[in-house]
Amino acid sequence: MASRTVSAHGALRRFLQDTRRRSLDLAAPLSDADASAQSMPDASPAKWHLAHTTWFFETFVLTPHAPGYRAFDPAFGFLFNSYYEAAGPRLRRDRRGMLTRPALAEVLAWRAHVDAALEDALDSLADAARARVMLGCHHEQQHQELLLTDILHLFAENPLAPVYAADAPFPAAAHDAAHDWAAHPGGVVSIGHAGDGFAFDCETPRHRVLLEPFALGSRLVTNAEWTAFIDDGGYRTPTLWLSDGWAWAEREDIRAPLYWRREDGGWSAMTLRGRMPVDPAAPATHVGYFEADAFARWAGARLPREAEWEAMAAMAAVATGAAAETPALSQMDGACWQWTQSAYAAYPRFRPAAGAVGEYNGKFMCGQFVLKGSSCVTPAGHSRPGYRNFFYPRQRWQFTSVRLAKDI
Amino acid sequence: MASRTVSAHGALRRFLQDTRRRSLDLAAPLSDADASAQSMPDASPAKWHLAHTTWFFETFVLTPHAPGYRAFDPAFGFLFNSYYEAAGPRLRRDRRGMLTRPALAEVLAWRAHVDAALEDALDSLADAARARVMLGCHHEQQHQELLLTDILHLFAENPLAPVYAADAPFPAAAHDAAHDWAAHPGGVVSIGHAGDGFAFDCETPRHRVLLEPFALGSRLVTNAEWTAFIDDGGYRTPTLWLSDGWAWAEREDIRAPLYWRREDGGWSAMTLRGRMPVDPAAPATHVGYFEADAFARWAGARLPREAEWEAMAAMAAVATGAAAETPALSQMDGACWQWTQSAYAAYPRFRPAAGAVGEYNGKFMCGQFVLKGSSCVTPAGHSRPGYRNFFYPRQRWQFTSVRLAKDI
Amino acid sequence: MASRTVSAHGALRRFLQDTRRRSLDLAAPLSDADASAQSMPDASPAKWHLAHTTWFFETFVLTPHAPGYRAFDPAFGFLFNSYYEAAGPRLRRDRRGMLTRPALAEVLAWRAHVDAALEDALDSLADAARARVMLGCHHEQQHQELLLTDILHLFAENPLAPVYAADAPFPAAAHDAAHDWAAHPGGVVSIGHAGDGFAFDCETPRHRVLLEPFALGSRLVTNAEWTAFIDDGGYRTPTLWLSDGWAWAEREDIRAPLYWRREDGGWSAMTLRGRMPVDPAAPATHVGYFEADAFARWAGARLPREAEWEAMAAMAAVATGAAAETPALSQMDGACWQWTQSAYAAYPRFRPAAGAVGEYNGKFMCGQFVLKGSSCVTPAGHSRPGYRNFFYPRQRWQFTSVRLAKDI
Amino acid sequence: MASRTVSAHGALRRFLQDTRRRSLDLAAPLSDADASAQSMPDASPAKWHLAHTTWFFETFVLTPHAPGYRAFDPAFGFLFNSYYEAAGPRLRRDRRGMLTRPALAEVLAWRAHVDAALEDALDSLADAARARVMLGCHHEQQHQELLLTDILHLFAENPLAPVYAADAPFPAAAHDAAHDWAAHPGGVVSIGHAGDGFAFDCETPRHRVLLEPFALGSRLVTNAEWTAFIDDGGYRTPTLWLSDGWAWAEREDIRAPLYWRREDGGWSAMTLRGRMPVDPAAPATHVGYFEADAFARWAGARLPREAEWEAMAAMAAVATGAAAETPALSQMDGACWQWTQSAYAAYPRFRPAAGAVGEYNGKFMCGQFVLKGSSCVTPAGHSRPGYRNFFYPRQRWQFTSVRLAKDI
Repeated sequence: MASRTVSAHGALRRFLQDTRRRSLDLAAPLSDADASAQSMPDASPAKWHLAHTTWFFETFVLTPHAPGYRAFDPAFGFLFNSYYEAAGPRLRRDRRGMLTRPALAEVLAWRAHVDAALEDALDSLADAARARVMLGCHHEQQHQELLLTDILHLFAENPLAPVYAADAPFPAAAHDAAHDWAAHPGGVVSIGHAGDGFAFDCETPRHRVLLEPFALGSRLVTNAEWTAFIDDGGYRTPTLWLSDGWAWAEREDIRAPLYWRREDGGWSAMTLRGRMPVDPAAPATHVGYFEADAFARWAGARLPREAEWEAMAAMAAVATGAAAETPALSQMDGACWQWTQSAYAAYPRFRPAAGAVGEYNGKFMCGQFVLKGSSCVTPAGHSRPGYRNFFYPRQRWQFTSVRLAKDI
Repeated sequence: MASRTVSAHGALRRFLQDTRRRSLDLAAPLSDADASAQSMPDASPAKWHLAHTTWFFETFVLTPHAPGYRAFDPAFGFLFNSYYEAAGPRLRRDRRGMLTRPALAEVLAWRAHVDAALEDALDSLADAARARVMLGCHHEQQHQELLLTDILHLFAENPLAPVYAADAPFPAAAHDAAHDWAAHPGGVVSIGHAGDGFAFDCETPRHRVLLEPFALGSRLVTNAEWTAFIDDGGYRTPTLWLSDGWAWAEREDIRAPLYWRREDGGWSAMTLRGRMPVDPAAPATHVGYFEADAFARWAGARLPREAEWEAMAAMAAVATGAAAETPALSQMDGACWQWTQSAYAAYPRFRPAAGAVGEYNGKFMCGQFVLKGSSCVTPAGHSRPGYRNFFYPRQRWQFTSVRLAKDI
Repeated sequence: MASRTVSAHGALRRFLQDTRRRSLDLAAPLSDADASAQSMPDASPAKWHLAHTTWFFETFVLTPHAPGYRAFDPAFGFLFNSYYEAAGPRLRRDRRGMLTRPALAEVLAWRAHVDAALEDALDSLADAARARVMLGCHHEQQHQELLLTDILHLFAENPLAPVYAADAPFPAAAHDAAHDWAAHPGGVVSIGHAGDGFAFDCETPRHRVLLEPFALGSRLVTNAEWTAFIDDGGYRTPTLWLSDGWAWAEREDIRAPLYWRREDGGWSAMTLRGRMPVDPAAPATHVGYFEADAFARWAGARLPREAEWEAMAAMAAVATGAAAETPALSQMDGACWQWTQSAYAAYPRFRPAAGAVGEYNGKFMCGQFVLKGSSCVTPAGHSRPGYRNFFYPRQRWQFTSVRLAKDI
Repeated sequence: MASRTVSAHGALRRFLQDTRRRSLDLAAPLSDADASAQSMPDASPAKWHLAHTTWFFETFVLTPHAPGYRAFDPAFGFLFNSYYEAAGPRLRRDRRGMLTRPALAEVLAWRAHVDAALEDALDSLADAARARVMLGCHHEQQHQELLLTDILHLFAENPLAPVYAADAPFPAAAHDAAHDWAAHPGGVVSIGHAGDGFAFDCETPRHRVLLEPFALGSRLVTNAEWTAFIDDGGYRTPTLWLSDGWAWAEREDIRAPLYWRREDGGWSAMTLRGRMPVDPAAPATHVGYFEADAFARWAGARLPREAEWEAMAAMAAVATGAAAETPALSQMDGACWQWTQSAYAAYPRFRPAAGAVGEYNGKFMCGQFVLKGSSCVTPAGHSRPGYRNFFYPRQRWQFTSVRLAKDI
């Protein structure tokens, strides 16, 4: 979370303004009811995202650092604290959909109130407080992605299959349809956050890792390939699966990626543009770790390790400047998050940030797997090669996909 | 459900208009979000009530009986069928809160469309179809009550404790605070629906029952009496409880009526007027069968049987016209529904109505108990002495209370 | 529970001896492991039955009424109290299978110790205490039936389908295969316990009930008829079912009576004699209330009311002495318990027995249905026309069946 | 699983005989009922362990490799297959306690039958089959440990707290009570199985890992230290816990290690010797990953990584031969398994063993954490520094403990 050097004042102000405005833009197509519903405990209402990100600035910037600031409504702390034990008690996560009040309009008024106070305070904030503003912006970007994936999940529950926006993002097919392998020689590589830019605490400290030689797939797995997996009985063959994965698939009757439905003319999938035929060339998405791992085994390959993915991304970045020997790696970002086989865990000498924001990442280091890259709904500039996204194996409502790996 | 004789045309038209308009009035204080949220599987969103009652007229009156009528939106049948197996598949009951679309405005447009079609068709409908209109009105009245109890449950989940309306109904205290006993000599009495007016199928046929002498309490149990039960350890004494009730109370940690919370100054309760101090003189409400039964045992009494309540109501009706020997029975209706110890079951020679509406009542005759009377949120004129309301013992979100009974 | 007059001393002694010995006989075919396992929370290990019935005599007869008696092992009270809140805390019902100790041999030693003490004390016991001995014997008879049904359930869980005894009881086919109707004119009848013999408290007081004319089936429904119900889609047709029943059947994937399995050559069923082909002429058994009710509806009939069954049994008893006009009613007892549509509830002026044994019946009067008659594993002489057995609608492991009823 | 070189014939025969006999010795104190009960889905009946290990030899050695061998009972495959999908269907794991038949005596007869067949076949087995015998012995050793931990769990459920054996193993206190830190300089180390001895497939291949400098605690955490953690509110302080851990502790009401109970005179714990006072000097045991992690955070330290533990064990082994600079590390084995912060995952270039035994380890590589060392109930010689035990964070019934680590 530590932003090593705080951006120049003007840049931070602009980043803050852009970020705050973009959240409003994302919510614009939603009705009050759309914005208030919670489709599952993993998801939150859009209104809650708008409110929680505001609470974050109010609680961690304005209240402690802006003299004279008064909370907009003292009751909101209980409603919109997500999981910060140090910040006090809070509404049960699975009851966020009960908050039909405050109305969306009231939340927007709160946003304006906090935005104005931030605007006033920004120039006089000390560096530590300005680092919190920066953190708050990156935090809000994360919730922008969640706002979209949560709305997709909600709309997918509705038999009417509403359209969020006719031009909403979707994961695009790779430019080159052929699947190739990009090799890496292994050896000692450095991973984790480098340089002065912003990073979350869990991306630090940068450290060395020893890798064996390996190769990564040049693009993500496509829907055509995933359909072949289905047609070959991939979801019915227990020996392809992890034990916990098979139990999950049997219990939940999992037979295809989330949002897929078999129609007369083939598979369709719910998207932010409504229900659409599955595009064979597009990357398979909304797959969980369990089925990603089973797919890789079926394909005679495996999932990448986090350090492999990151080392390859660094090498590709270097290669781009010259005549690269390796085939181009496409879809490393901007399409779908990519499951790795690495459990989300602390880097050597990891230290959570001080204070309540120290709960941001560290306490989730159990039972989840790292995903690398970014997705079609990740805000531009939000991710980076050292970025560590993480989800439970069963979770499928994010734009998640598979890039294969193998030993060489 | 059989309306023995169909009301005069003008009266039916007026009843239909009044009923339909009243639903709109009840929804007026609600935002789109308020109207779309579902707080538990037992409850439904207000918008769903508005839509389902409309679906009922469309499905059971207009489509079969109004030549040329076209359904407003064919998709709505799946969304707003409640539980009629014969009317086709339907949305899972616990997912009604996912319907942020159709928007409230669209549901209102549907209502107007159906209202206009009913208006046009009414005069030319055959008697059987007019009986369905009458049924649809009484059905909508039931949902009007549910709309209010469901909103109360939703608002009670919200830490902000929103006010539905500053002048919303509440169960009033009895005129006479003293508790007395009204005796009945027993013998063969007739219960069930009599006369030509409307009744639901489960109220028929009228039949004879043999009763032993008994007495009923002259008023409902008050909050002051319920507080004494709590203070005497009523919720901690297993020997006062049915076995299933004690298991439920332990599992759910039940210590007071639903919506009660102990505050510094005593008990408060969530109401349609927001959170209010508990009024000692008002009837105790939002109690389930289990605690009603435990309370009665604690009080050295028992719950009434359905036939006892109904026979007493009939006697009281007669007595009103003359110099009644028995003390006045107050709060027989208009305050709270009153738990009886009678399981909801078929009357001798009961025959469910023909067709899909035969699922209205009969298939619920298992595991539920009859409640008699009516509540402060029951539409005027909706109930009658033979009326049979029914809920599961664990259910507490209706305006339910206790009238004591004893053998004499 | 009130035994109106206490049996002559010799008769009670003999009843006690016979009852206690019969429990040992029933357990004789069981290994220590068989006797210790619990196959579901509704069932108990055979060893637990042997111990609990002993605890009953120790707790309710010897400790309070036999001067100088010392409990065999003070720890056993916690282990073998079933549900008597007034008798102190106890092991969770679903953990009875954890009691691999005390060993079966130790429980048998306890039984001998208690038997000897009862033998010594019997002559000097006051009437109230002798009534408790009588109650303890009838209580033990109930557990004898449970011991057998619980072993059957355990053995049915074992893929080896062990045989309890090659000559174990089973429900026999009716002498006359034809199904006829026995009519009753209705009117005011008296039901409940009459006379001086033993009865449980819930069978009292005897009271009058007013019945409409009705008829009962002359025999129980057969396996051939049940197979026709299955083949006609009875388990797949929601409109035949109660709403709760259909939800249960869907959730549990219920498609046939408990213990039935479709084999190549037709249906087989697990029995106390091992897995056997289903006998078309034998009564259908191990059916729950929900499917019993659905079957009756499918057959164009209904289930009997408790008072109808009992009144018919009384009439049949009278008719037997003369030239009966009605066809013989077979299988009224000794084959299978017969579901009635009557919820298990208190008779008018019912008073539970005083003291802890008052928990015997009264606290279960919620959510269960009355069964009449007796089964092939009910001890001879245990049941009577006024006997009230009761189970939850979902329960199927008893020898339960269906006798049809209809209005006439 | 690959045993690189097969032991000399005589040694294997002796290992087999010793291993098979030891299982019988462990079961000797158990009654038929003790041996047949299952206390939770994670645990198995002792009889099942005796049978399953026998099934393993029959299925993977005798049937494929001993010409003319006939399975003792074809039904046993279904009963005693644990989780090998490739070996066919099997009894649900949580129903193993239903197998009161086959009786213990019959299982012992099966064991004798298989032992005799193995004895006959051993000399003529090819190397691959002899490797399977070796695997079967190590497999049986694992079940010997489980047999004891499962019996402890069963007996802990019994309010009588039975004694397994008066001289049963327990985790002994360290010789030196003082806690010191043993430093390691880090760098590139090799971990994983080395040499020709037996190892499970998941311990291979040996590979290099880059470590930062670190230190490990010289002994395990003691009960005195754990009591201080409790007394300091460790189980009530959410900021010490992983998010999932806190949710688990709240849901399950976890307040102390498994088997601990607060008595008047302090803490007692269930052991294989019955319920005993907690020994302050003995290592804290029966703690799960969640509380191990919380304890380490409370202590200002962290849990070791798997490679750190293994590298330190290797260094200690070297140091033992000379004048070691580091303080002696005690309790590395023979007391309690030691939680590491390393998720159980595949080593680089890991390949599961071929055939059905390939399901032995690989399919469990999700959601579990590695434990190193061995416990007081691990068979002598079974473990080694490269050994990888693994359990879910919530599991506590093994002899698990904490060795602290820190960065230096």
